[in-house]
This record gives sequence, structure tokens and C-alpha cells, in this order.
Amino acid sequence: MQRIKIGVYDSGVGGLTVLKQLLKKIPYGIDFFYFADTARLPYGSKPQEMVRGFVFEIFDFFRHLNVDAIVTACNTTDSLLTETEKKSLWIPFFSIIEPAVRYLRDSISGKNSVAIIGTEVTVKRSVYLRKLIIDGNISRISQKACPLFVPLVEEGLSDSELTERVVAYYLKEIKAFSPDFLILGCTHYSYLKNAVSKYLGNKTQIVDPAEHVSGQVIDWIGEIGDTNKSRISFYVTGSAEDFKRKATFLLGSNGELKVNHVDLERLGEIINL
Amino acid sequence: MQRIKIGVYDSGVGGLTVLKQLLKKIPYGIDFFYFADTARLPYGSKPQEMVRGFVFEIFDFFRHLNVDAIVTACNTTDSLLTETEKKSLWIPFFSIIEPAVRYLRDSISGKNSVAIIGTEVTVKRSVYLRKLIIDGNISRISQKACPLFVPLVEEGLSDSELTERVVAYYLKEIKAFSPDFLILGCTHYSYLKNAVSKYLGNKTQIVDPAEHVSGQVIDWIGEIGDTNKSRISFYVTGSAEDFKRKATFLLGSNGELKVNHVDLERLGEIINL
Repeated sequence: MQRIKIGVYDSGVGGLTVLKQLLKKIPYGIDFFYFADTARLPYGSKPQEMVRGFVFEIFDFFRHLNVDAIVTACNTTDSLLTETEKKSLWIPFFSIIEPAVRYLRDSISGKNSVAIIGTEVTVKRSVYLRKLIIDGNISRISQKACPLFVPLVEEGLSDSELTERVVAYYLKEIKAFSPDFLILGCTHYSYLKNAVSKYLGNKTQIVDPAEHVSGQVIDWIGEIGDTNKSRISFYVTGSAEDFKRKATFLLGSNGELKVNHVDLERLGEIINL
Repeated sequence: MQRIKIGVYDSGVGGLTVLKQLLKKIPYGIDFFYFADTARLPYGSKPQEMVRGFVFEIFDFFRHLNVDAIVTACNTTDSLLTETEKKSLWIPFFSIIEPAVRYLRDSISGKNSVAIIGTEVTVKRSVYLRKLIIDGNISRISQKACPLFVPLVEEGLSDSELTERVVAYYLKEIKAFSPDFLILGCTHYSYLKNAVSKYLGNKTQIVDPAEHVSGQVIDWIGEIGDTNKSRISFYVTGSAEDFKRKATFLLGSNGELKVNHVDLERLGEIINL
């Protein structure tokens, strides 16, 4: 039986939080292809047109890998694509923003306040903000870009005292405003959940979009019956060794991860697996 | 009379500290071309072979601009080039590491200790370390990579309380060892001089390589007599607007800076000025 192939991508290790959720929640054996554009990271501080160019290169790469669906594990690129672009891909595209917005719409009551944190691009694009405002059921909403969070996480400093300082630096106004919900609008930020939660206190519920992606993917998969173990192949544009070390730690993996280096020049070409 | 053209490059705004020194110390009118590869920044955390590729593209770009000399304002790339490569360029290449090493060799006595901070690549390449050890006249030497310093500076946070925390985080061991000299082995770090100096205390003399580059450039220029004002053209691979804002602030410029965007794909092609 042909196994389902799913492409998951991010600029770096942030999207592993999405991959982890998919591995945990999908009850079937899937072939995952995780692409991390570590050579061009961070995405969130770069010009929007440039990052849009990167995404379509990644789509081309997935086309050559012959995947059956793409799950974006990157809020920045998700915010840069139009609904039409997402719908007109040759295979299903699963957004990370959409399910989190739906979850919030179902959870909030008229008097709730929401804050969103993300990269500079994500905050400029204001997709979470606009989608939640359209619903109209929020008393107050604000957003804030935290550009140092991605480098912090990529440096493996998520649980350091330094991170607590950086979190306090960026979230000062949000803490003062004490929102009912805080959306982690960048998958890298999932690793900072403890520090963010500790700083903001119990009143604020942290919403991690990575936790809400799997639902629609599971619906799409339906019943396939393959109960063998899922497999993951990693593709990175930067150092394979470096990524292997980080991903092994972040995924809490015991086995040897299969990490392939991809030359940026060859992204659009056919790759022999 | 033909004015001298000098190409200066860095991954981002760090090299502006070198440009500032050249503008201040060269007594003649020069046409400067400052290239910042902001779309591919940071350099210091990327694979070495990839960054070497970037440098040769930048050299190609300068070749098409027909510059008379290249001044590197980037320690990372300087540390990646061999002596032979630097000498076999079609025009003179001025290192940022060399003059700082010479200055230190002349300044240190047998009992002095030295610490070097830089990007991950610069620290791995150990060029400062090896060149200073070869001299043998040092009692103790150490080096440390500080990967968050470049993002901090690019974020415009050099004088924030957050920077003091990050400085304390990275320089803890160096403070304990209390070296006589600390080399700022990355041009971005020049902007953190105050925070670094405040943290390490008076015993440690901060050596900023950007301040030592101009001497050999001035010797090479000789007497040309053009006493008109120097001109600067900026070329960036990322957002021109963003760079203009940052550079205007960092250079303390009153006038309008001329910042051009260069497509990465067109780096090696002929550019119409």
C-alpha cells in the first residue's frame, strides 16, 4: 500500500513543534518530509517579497518529492500567502494560522482580550489580528513583534535566564495589559512557552497554534489503516550536522535522524531520494 | 581627475563602523561603495563553505563596480579567506584582522592576557588566536562566540538594558578571567563597546579592529590631492528602506543616504550605476 507523504516546512527548528504534534496525533504511519531553510533563516525580518520567493521554491521542492499535502509550520510564510494562492496549489495546503483562529473564535466570549506575538513580517501582515477583529467578539486586541526570539531558540537558549530577560523586555506592555489569551504566532515561540507563561502569570492562557494544526490534517487523511510507524526525512539548506544535533534534542529523539543537506541552487531541481 | 573607488562590505550595519573610520581618517575625497548582504545576514552562524561562496559573489559585484580596492568590514569572511586568496585578487584587499593583530603585538608585554569575541565562524577559524599565539608573547588567551550580538545590533538595541544582560551572559567567564585586552572580533560588536566596557571594568582595554584598518589604506592611497568630499553609495540585498533608516541613525548622518537594492540573482551581473 502506498503511504501518505506530507511535506512540513519552516525556516528552522520552530516547525518541529508542529511535526511533533502531527506525529503524536495522527494515528497512521505517514512519510514526513521536513524542510528547514536554515541557510536563509530568519524569515521574519526579511523583505516580504523575498520570503514569498523562498516559499514558492520550497513548494517546488515538495513537488519534486511528490508529497500528497503540505503543512506549513511557519506563521511568517502562512501570513504572506493569499487564500487564493493556498487554494490553487496542486495539493492540499494546511495553514497554521487558520485552526488557531477557529479555536480562539470558539473559546472567547465578548469580554475577552487577546494579544499576538510573532515575527516582524507576521505582525506587519496582521493576519491573526484581522481575522479575530472581523469576528468582532473581542474587547481588546494587540500584537507585538519579538525579533530576538527566533535567534534565541536557534541558539538553544530557550530555558536560560537570558530568555527570561528577553521575554520580559518584549512582553512588558502585554503584561501590563494582561490579556486573557496570548497567541504564540511563530512556531519557534512554542519553545518559550514556559518562560512566557511564567512571566505573564496565570490569568493569560497561552494559545500554541502548533497544537491545533493536526485536526484538519487528520480529517483529510481519513481512514487509511496503515498502522506502521511514521518515518521522517529531514532536508536543510544549512549545516546538516548542526540541524541534526538541535533536532535530536528538541524532538527528544533516541534514534539517528536522517538529515540531508540541500543546495539552495538545487531547490527547484529533481532530487533523487 | 579620476577619484579613487573603494568597496567596503559587511553582512549588515556592522561594517559602518569601518566606513566611519575611513571617512574620518582618509584626508582625501574617495568614492565609497558600501555593500551589505542584509538578505543573507547573519553570516557568522552559517556553514563556512556557504559564506565563502557569498564573499566571491561580493567580489564579483565589486569587479563590475570597477573599484580600485576592497576593504573588508567583516571579520567572519576575513577569517574564511586564505592569505593566497586575498593576495591573488585583481586589486588590493585590506584585511580587518591583520592591522588589529599588529596593533596588539606592538602593545602587549609578555605578561598580558587577551580575550577575543566574535561570531561562531570567526571563533571556529581562530585566526586572531593563532596569529597572536604564534607571537608567543601572551600569558593567557581565550575566545568566545556571542551569536546573539549581531541580531541585537541589527535590531537597534545596542544601548538597551537588554544588551547589558546579553553582554553579562556571554562575557561571564571572560570577566572572571579579567583579560588585559579584549578584541571585538566582529564589526557589529563595536556598537556594544560601551556595554562591554562597563561590564568588564577598567582593567580590560577594548581593542576595536575597525579603528586600525585605515592606516594601511591611507598608505596605499598615497598623495592624490583630491580634497573634495567623499561620496558613499550603498548597496543592500535586503530592504533598502530599512537599511537607510538604520544607517542614517548609526552614521549620525544629516543628509539623505543613497541606498540601492540589489537582487541576489543579479549580484554577479553588470550593474548600471
